[in-house]
Amino acid sequence: MKREKPKYKQIIDAAVIAIADNGYHQAQVSKIAKQAGVADGTIYLYFKNKEDILISVFEEKMAVFIESLNNIIIENTDPTEKLRLMIQNHFEVLSNDTYLSRVTQLELRQSNRDLRLKINAILKVYLDQLDAILKEGVESGAFSKDIDLRLARQVIFGTIDEVTTSWVMKDHKFDLTLQAPKVFQLLLNGIKA
Amino acid sequence: MKREKPKYKQIIDAAVIAIADNGYHQAQVSKIAKQAGVADGTIYLYFKNKEDILISVFEEKMAVFIESLNNIIIENTDPTEKLRLMIQNHFEVLSNDTYLSRVTQLELRQSNRDLRLKINAILKVYLDQLDAILKEGVESGAFSKDIDLRLARQVIFGTIDEVTTSWVMKDHKFDLTLQAPKVFQLLLNGIKA
Repeated sequence: MKREKPKYKQIIDAAVIAIADNGYHQAQVSKIAKQAGVADGTIYLYFKNKEDILISVFEEKMAVFIESLNNIIIENTDPTEKLRLMIQNHFEVLSNDTYLSRVTQLELRQSNRDLRLKINAILKVYLDQLDAILKEGVESGAFSKDIDLRLARQVIFGTIDEVTTSWVMKDHKFDLTLQAPKVFQLLLNGIKA
Repeated sequence: MKREKPKYKQIIDAAVIAIADNGYHQAQVSKIAKQAGVADGTIYLYFKNKEDILISVFEEKMAVFIESLNNIIIENTDPTEKLRLMIQNHFEVLSNDTYLSRVTQLELRQSNRDLRLKINAILKVYLDQLDAILKEGVESGAFSKDIDLRLARQVIFGTIDEVTTSWVMKDHKFDLTLQAPKVFQLLLNGIKA
């Protein structure tokens, strides 16, 4: 597995910084190599091309969101509490890595259709976890039986995404994690039974 | 005013189709000229460059949203009804022009910071109208006095945007306007008094 090779993670982390600083289109493979402290050729031992690097960055970093949300789901029984922790966790992960936040909120919004479909496929695992929380909440009676699950997911994800993009566009000038309780309360009002 | 010149609107409408069909980066000025049925040089009588065309497209098309929302605000007194009509109108405008929906949901998400700031400045007028509806609703007692206005706006706009992008990514296979009443109800639950 290429992911277990020593320089894989080093290149991924360097790519996040190079793409955040230069923008995806201006982040040449040579810039990513320089940031990672490896030869240009080394990059091609791990990645097919720059698009493959971008997709791999998203895959690796989404794994952080997915793993921590999985822990939240396992360690808690109350779906309302799971939703609260999901929102808090999402904002915390991005607050701890402002480079990553620029990549996820701006650079990953590529209009190229193939790239977009690959990005959506990776995001789907995370959205499926959110769906599971919503479904559990409806079944337990915590959330309204009348909500359309797909729509509720779009409201929640759309809101988290918009609040985060707004924070990135304002150069991270306010504390994103402080928004979590208010975002949670507004969203909960929308779906609770 | 260049906007009143005969070919301005013709080029704007052609640019929407050329950008939707080819993607912004692949929509050369010559392709836009061909779509508009004008000589390449004519484009430069109206626009500085391709970026100027994209910004002008957004400005012209947002004017449609802004004008119709303005009519909604003038013709109605109930802030809840204004919000309902705003969501319905947003979905209707985009349903009637799937080329435009591809431009607004995919092609206008350019990561270039200057471009992004220009896009956000144009969007601001529309978001200010939404803020006014929310403020009126809080003052009239229709919406909760506890809501954070900026956050409520982000929830509403983020949701509308996410539902629309999802519809575009699914190749407009479902009727977006049929989503309006459900989206409105979920959002209203979140903010009502």
